[in-house]
Order: sequence, then C-alpha cells, then structure tokens
Amino acid sequence: MTTPPKKTQEPLITSITDLPTASAKWITLQKISYLDQTGAPRTWEVASRKTRARSAGVDAVAMGNVLLHPTRPAATVLVIQYRPPLDAYTVEWPAGLIDEGETAEEAAVREFREEIGWECEVVGVSPVQAADPGLSSANMKLVMVEVRLGEGEEEGVLPVQRLEDGEHIQRVVVPLGELYQRLVEYSQKERMVVAAKLFHFAAGMEFARTKGKEYGI
Amino acid sequence: MTTPPKKTQEPLITSITDLPTASAKWITLQKISYLDQTGAPRTWEVASRKTRARSAGVDAVAMGNVLLHPTRPAATVLVIQYRPPLDAYTVEWPAGLIDEGETAEEAAVREFREEIGWECEVVGVSPVQAADPGLSSANMKLVMVEVRLGEGEEEGVLPVQRLEDGEHIQRVVVPLGELYQRLVEYSQKERMVVAAKLFHFAAGMEFARTKGKEYGI
Repeated sequence: MTTPPKKTQEPLITSITDLPTASAKWITLQKISYLDQTGAPRTWEVASRKTRARSAGVDAVAMGNVLLHPTRPAATVLVIQYRPPLDAYTVEWPAGLIDEGETAEEAAVREFREEIGWECEVVGVSPVQAADPGLSSANMKLVMVEVRLGEGEEEGVLPVQRLEDGEHIQRVVVPLGELYQRLVEYSQKERMVVAAKLFHFAAGMEFARTKGKEYGI
Repeated sequence: MTTPPKKTQEPLITSITDLPTASAKWITLQKISYLDQTGAPRTWEVASRKTRARSAGVDAVAMGNVLLHPTRPAATVLVIQYRPPLDAYTVEWPAGLIDEGETAEEAAVREFREEIGWECEVVGVSPVQAADPGLSSANMKLVMVEVRLGEGEEEGVLPVQRLEDGEHIQRVVVPLGELYQRLVEYSQKERMVVAAKLFHFAAGMEFARTKGKEYGI
C-alpha cells in the first residue's frame, strides 16, 4: 500500500484582514523617532521581523548556487513557490531564516539540503545586505555554494526534498548562460514574479556579458 | 547675506515604539488566510505599502545608471543616506516611489533629476520584481538609464540636487569596473550597509567577470 498523493490545486486567498501589531507573531510595525542631520525631529515607520537570531545578527541567507557536472554546462537551481504576500508564484534562489545558534554558512547548508536535497559546499559569503531598506529592517547574506555532481548524476533528476509541513517548493535547473533570459520569460507568465535579488544578480551578469568590454568591467 | 548652513550631526534615534496598525500612515500589517496546494487552510503575515499608485501597479523604481564621459571610464552614481529602519547609512542606487499617474519610466527620470540633479535617458526597463517576497508585497522595476556627459563635465562635479525637505542624500561616483570592490569596502565601514539589490547586481557582474568563461556565461 502506498500513501495516496495529496491533491494539488491553485492556492486561493480566502480573506485579507488588518492585523493588529500586538497580534502579529512573525513581523511587527514600529515607529522610529529620530533627530536628523540638522537636529530636526522626524519619524519613520518600519516593518521588522521578530525572529532574528541574536547569534548571527542577520535574518536570512540566500544561496547563490552553481551546479557543476563533468560534461554538462554549469547550472543553477531555482525554487518556485506560492507567496501569499504577492498572491503569485515567485522565482527565487533557495533561501531561509537563520536559526538561533547558527552561522550564515551553517544555515545555508541546512536550508539548501532541506529545500533542494543536495549537500553543497560554501565557496563565499557576502557582507550583510539590507533587504529593502526604505521599508524594513530585514537583512541577509548571499552565500555562494557549489554542488559537484558525479558523471551519473543528472541535474534534471533532483534528489528528495526535506520540506517542512506546508512547504510546496518546485525546483528548476537552469544553465547559468541562460539564466537572465529564463527569468525574463518567467516574468511574462501569468501569476509569476521573479524576486528582486535574483533578478538583479542575473541582470548584473547580463550587463557584464553584453557591456563589459565597452565599459571596462 | 547668505543663509547660514544647516548644522550637520549624526542622526540619533530617540525612541522606538510599537505602532498600532490603525495608526500607520505609510505601511500596514495584514493577515492573509488562504488555502494551499493541498486545500489546507493557512495564514501568512504580510507588511504592505499603503502608497502604491494604481496607475502603475508597482511601488517603486530603482535607477541602474551609467555615466558616459568622452574620456573617462564608464561610471555609476550611488546614493548614501541614513535609513532609520537600519540605524545605518545605506549605499543604494537612486530609487523612489512611483506617483499616481506616472509610468515607471517617468518616475525614474523624475527621481533621478531630484536625487542626482542630472537629466537621464531610459535605455531599459525590467519586468516587475518582488522586493522581499517572504515579508512584504512590495514590488519594483529596475530602470536602466544613461547620462551622457560632455567633455567639460566631470563626473566628480555633481549638479545641484532638488531634494524634498528632510532628505539628506550624499552622491558618490564609482567607475563600473570598481563597483563590486567598492561595495565590499563600504560594507566594512561602521554603520554602513549596502542594499541587497545593488549588491546582487554588482555580485552578478563580478561573477560573470571572474567565472564567465569557465561557466559559459
């Protein structure tokens, strides 16, 4: 006997209600009062995560990943998932929140294993970056990782994920040389949107590829 | 008689208080109830901007800009400003919210004129991107713009800004070939943080420059 497959349907929003700040569990709204450069009193409204691990001092990691195969072109694995804030499927690099006691590198390896299923090697860690500094205090690090596949391991055949209950994450493998064009194509599909960080990385690659010689990059 | 210069001091946060959702003017907290892919009821907490222009359907634009000078290397202008959500100075590309009735292109030209002081030409507009899709519904477009400087115009001599009251924005010009390294250096300074979108664009450029040949980019 096998477990019957779970039914799959389009996610459907049933209600959107104002959330009192005191009732919010994951995020909060705060008002910052400050003196600006001229000494004038000003205020700013900010959304913050309530989950930042004190050990790392950083909310989240995203895994810029390179899949290396002996005979296939270098590729990267993206995740596509329904994101209620946008009522759309987003295309992103795998990412996740850093747990208490973890370093960014440890969180990257753990989250990559959970979302993608492969063991990866960390090859670089960025400085702390401000996720959306006009709106929120959220911050993150970009951790570059590599997965070295064996001759028999095909990039199209993905390993088993270790997802938490309620996570529905589709994985797609894209050759790095096609990344920018594929993101543009995803953006044209209905109910799909590419995350800004991934799009900017790919746009930077494309910019260097097409304008690098002219602009001395 | 001249107006006495405004005194300059380090911005100072005087209080941070919980902001009731009903009192917030710029952003809001909402609870989304939805049915997931298996039909299971779930909830998600989201921060949203209250200012999205219905005409564009997009919150904001960032201006990826190229300064072209007859004899100097291609460069880009960055803005450094105090961001209360992070209690730090952020390094970003110029950016701003789209006003009602404006297109993304119009907002880009207007904001670039206000923050930087130069007239720019739009050379490309990205698809809509999700600013921080796990946390907020905020979205944006990356508008690539060019400024063609004359032989006599030096990039180091910046034109007059047209800032709104309370805006204190420092501009720095960086050759495109040095952008990534300069962002890494800014990240190492005290009380400074680079915005994730700009950092990712520069990291993508650097990735293509250093790994492009090896990875077929």
